[in-house]
This record gives sequence, C-alpha cells and structure tokens, in this order.
Amino acid sequence: MELTMLGTAAGRPAEGRNVTAAALTMPPQRGTFWLFDCGEGTQHQLLRAGMKLCKLERIFVTHLHGDHVFGLPGLLGSRSSMGCDAPLTLHGPRGIRHWLETTFSITGAHVHYELEIREIDGDGGVVHEDDQFTVKAAPLNHRIACYGYRIEERPRPGRLDAAKLAELGVPQGPLYAQLKRGEDATLQDGRVIRAADVVGPPIPGRVIAILGDTTPCDAAIRLAEGADLVVHEATFEAALAGKAAEYGHSTTAEAARTARDARAARLLLTHFSGRYRDEDLPRLEAEAREVFPSSAAARDFLNVQLPHKRRT
Amino acid sequence: MELTMLGTAAGRPAEGRNVTAAALTMPPQRGTFWLFDCGEGTQHQLLRAGMKLCKLERIFVTHLHGDHVFGLPGLLGSRSSMGCDAPLTLHGPRGIRHWLETTFSITGAHVHYELEIREIDGDGGVVHEDDQFTVKAAPLNHRIACYGYRIEERPRPGRLDAAKLAELGVPQGPLYAQLKRGEDATLQDGRVIRAADVVGPPIPGRVIAILGDTTPCDAAIRLAEGADLVVHEATFEAALAGKAAEYGHSTTAEAARTARDARAARLLLTHFSGRYRDEDLPRLEAEAREVFPSSAAARDFLNVQLPHKRRT
Repeated sequence: MELTMLGTAAGRPAEGRNVTAAALTMPPQRGTFWLFDCGEGTQHQLLRAGMKLCKLERIFVTHLHGDHVFGLPGLLGSRSSMGCDAPLTLHGPRGIRHWLETTFSITGAHVHYELEIREIDGDGGVVHEDDQFTVKAAPLNHRIACYGYRIEERPRPGRLDAAKLAELGVPQGPLYAQLKRGEDATLQDGRVIRAADVVGPPIPGRVIAILGDTTPCDAAIRLAEGADLVVHEATFEAALAGKAAEYGHSTTAEAARTARDARAARLLLTHFSGRYRDEDLPRLEAEAREVFPSSAAARDFLNVQLPHKRRT
Repeated sequence: MELTMLGTAAGRPAEGRNVTAAALTMPPQRGTFWLFDCGEGTQHQLLRAGMKLCKLERIFVTHLHGDHVFGLPGLLGSRSSMGCDAPLTLHGPRGIRHWLETTFSITGAHVHYELEIREIDGDGGVVHEDDQFTVKAAPLNHRIACYGYRIEERPRPGRLDAAKLAELGVPQGPLYAQLKRGEDATLQDGRVIRAADVVGPPIPGRVIAILGDTTPCDAAIRLAEGADLVVHEATFEAALAGKAAEYGHSTTAEAARTARDARAARLLLTHFSGRYRDEDLPRLEAEAREVFPSSAAARDFLNVQLPHKRRT
C-alpha cells in the first residue's frame, strides 16, 4: 500500500500545488485505489500520476468546502466517458448527494457505472467494511460538518512455525492452511495438532488516519490512535494559532501534538495556506518535529510507502 | 487584443490539453480580459499563463456541459478569496444561476465582489454592450442549449488629414479632437471646417466569433460573418461526419466550410476528441485548409494576436 498526495494546498491552487486530494493504493491483489477528497483538478493530477480512473474503487470526502469537492463532477463524468464500468462508492457528508444530483441534472451529465452515494451524518461510525478493511468516520471541528477517516486493516494470521510442524510430522498441504486459519487439525494417526501451538500471534493490520480540516480536538486524537500514518492539515505556522482557530484550522505544532497524543508512528502535514511557498516547507516541517519528530511536510505527488507491519 | 487558448480538448482533459476555455485580452487601456467557457482546471491554466483573476471582467458560457463549466465554482471562489473586489458579470444559458447558487449554498462558498449572472434564453441577441464592444449571442445546434458569441468592436474615428489641416490653417489643439469626433469646427476668423473634409473614413472594429459545440448550422455562419477570427469546434476528423452529427458536433471540414461561407479571415480549430494526440493535429489542420486555407489547429496556451484593422 502507498499514499499518493495529489494536492497539498489550502483554498486554491498555487504554483506546483493543487487543492486537496490523496490516493490510497490498495494492496496489490485488489489492484484498486481509494481517493480522499477531490478538489478541482484531481482528475488532472491522477492523469499526471499515471493512475487510472477505472481503478478507483471508493471516494471518501471529508467536507463540502469547494477546495475538497469541486473536482468530483468532472472526475465522476470522465470515469464514465472513458468507458469504466466498475461500480464506485462515494462517502461524504450529508448534502453531497443533492449537490451532485443537481449538478448532473443541470449539466446533462450521467454516469454509466453503478455510483452509490452514502451520506454520513451525526457521529459517523463505521462507514465501510470488507474482508480486509474497516473505515470509521468521526466528526472533527471545522466551520462546516467535517469528518476524519480511520482506515484499519484487519490483522493477518500469524506465521506457521515450520520447524515445529516438521518435528510433529505434520505433512505439508491442506493441513497447513487449516492450521494457519486457526483451526486445530487431526493427523491420520489420530493426534490432534492445536493451531495455537504452531501458529504465531496474528500480525496487526496497518492503520491510516486521514483527517479533514479541523482545529485540534479529541476526535482527531481518537481517529489517529496508534496509527502508522496520520495525514493532518497544517494550514498555518505555529505562531498563527489564533488565525488557525478563527478559521477552524490547525497549525503545524497543533497537528504534531495530535499525532504525539495519539501515539501515532508518523505524521504527514498537508493543506498549507497559499502564503507558504515550497521554500517555507522545511520551516513548517521543523516546527512540527519539535513536538513530534516523525513529521514530514507533504508535496504534490509525494508517495508514502505503507509497509506491512512486522510481527509483534 | 489577443486570444489565449486555455483548453482545447473535448470532454475530458488529455495529456497537455485541458477542457475548454479561452481568454480574450481586452485592449490595453482596459487592462482586463474576458473568458469564454470555463472547464475544470481553468483557474489552474490562468495561473500557468500568468493571467490574474482580478483582471477578469466578464465570462461568457456557451453551454452547460461539464467540460465547459465545471471550473466555474472554483474560479469564482478563488477570485474572491484572493481579495479581488472588481465586479464580474457572467453570461450563460438558463440554468447556470440555479446550479451556481446550489453549489455555493451547499459548499458554503460566497464571493465578496459583485457577481452579476445574466442568463441567456431563446434566440439570444445582444447580451453586452459598452463604449467599445457589442456582444451578440445566437443559439447553435447541439444536444443541449448552446450559444455562439460574436464580439464586435465599434469602428474608430478615421485619421485626421494633417497636411490638409495645416493648409487650412487649423491650429492644433481642441479643434483637432472636435473634428476627429466628427463635429464641424468654426475657426476664429469665422470659417467653418467640415469634419468630413479633414477626417478619413472610420476604421472598422475587430470582429471575433467564438462558437460553442455545434453541428454546422446557419446561425454559426451568421455569427462568423466577415469575422477577423472564428474559433470553431472540430471534435472529429473529416471522415467522421456521421459520428459528429450523432453527438451534435462538427468535423474539421465542416468548421472550415462555416468559416468559408461566412467569408471570415481566419479559423482556429479547437475542442478535439480525446482520440487525437498532438501529432494528429497537423493532419486535422490540413483537412480544414483544403476547404479554408487560413485554418489553424489550436494548442493549449496558443496566443492569437488580433491586430487593429488597417484603414479600408
């Protein structure tokens, strides 16, 4: 899995930085990706990144401010006009359906694939679950309803202890798979092999928290709890905490405190105000690192690898 | 004046080509520009072209298909958030107001400058008039209501015949201006100088026709009549006339016939289907030139100069 930052600017595009979007490439066997937010020009960024719209499986929208959603109608339409027919599910705050339906109706747009729009309301909760992932949403604290997302990969079965299995005389084959699934196995000679004796502890799944625009809040910490990666807005530098609060945003230091308090592994800062140029990013990054050393400032097209966890 | 092509692709963005928009830089004394259509990413293209949103005076939308309007909400919002306070007028087909108002309301967007939305309906007609320009709209023939625009510059006063004025003993100064305005002047010695005797014929204004998506039709020819430049869609190559008709579009050859029948001076082809790459454009251009030699295929960021006419 990897996360590709498609837009790292707040409010409006700047030179070399587009408005918010991030693509999460799913594990290879799925061959798909998920999109988090979709500012204007996101389909252009995907084109540049060489990511195919047909592989887009799911979109999660944090909130309905234009710099997070104005790329949706075009992206949804292009995905259809290029002939993709795989279904697509869109998760987003209440209101997103009415806006898209109005937009499609007035502009004569229609999509030929199955588009499911699932609106999120109130306290959020589990918004998606499949055999590999659970996605939880929780309301943050912004000027309008805004949700953060926590993507939890299910734990994988522990490793088989090959030496022990050989010692016990368990023949390779279906019994190995049965034991790995956690089921005890009976050998031909009648002996029962307990899975717990030959399978290591489960390997925890990866956890990624992708938060929307917000002031520092408990919900952000809970979503980021123990995460391998937290993507957090840092619209302003540490000295502008007053301005950040006024506009419902966070500073670099505030984002870092959330990651620290959540005992997360890594923090990726994004959503920088237009007042900051590329040359300012090292300074913003340094502000966060003073609080939480594993902080980095995102650039457009940055890829963040999300390797499997080692056994604990 | 010059026209800057900001997007020359039909339907969805392609590598190196964005969806439709064109900026018409007004005469220098105005210091502004007008925008024709506003596909997604138009504000990004303006940023790249170094054109300031604050200088945008007027937008004309041909029709409400997404590839011509999905850039509007973001562009209108950015123009406000960067602090521009000059008024802006938007002309477009009926429905554009409802869409923008719904979009602004659901996304919490608002603009701080005076935004006037003037909907065009039925047969169009004169949609704008000022001391330099008249803009006429007329319905074309597309799948939904679509208008073409004809921008007519007013004629400028003819040149003063300096030699004749000297011979007649007319003193330089206010009398010159009076005569140039076409008003007769009385000298101190009582002689009356007739403007018609010392001012050349008026210099005709420039005419630009920027047409929306359409099959070949009489309205397109009328809008383009005698124009210095016609911007016409050519979604398909000449051999695909059937497909063009089916989707309400034109071929290269059809666009060229319209320019020829309108006795226009120059034709600029745009709105190319995604099936064509940059290397196909010379072939498309050649198809049009067989019918109308002064044809050219547009590329993104192409600037077309529109010099003043010489005296006729």
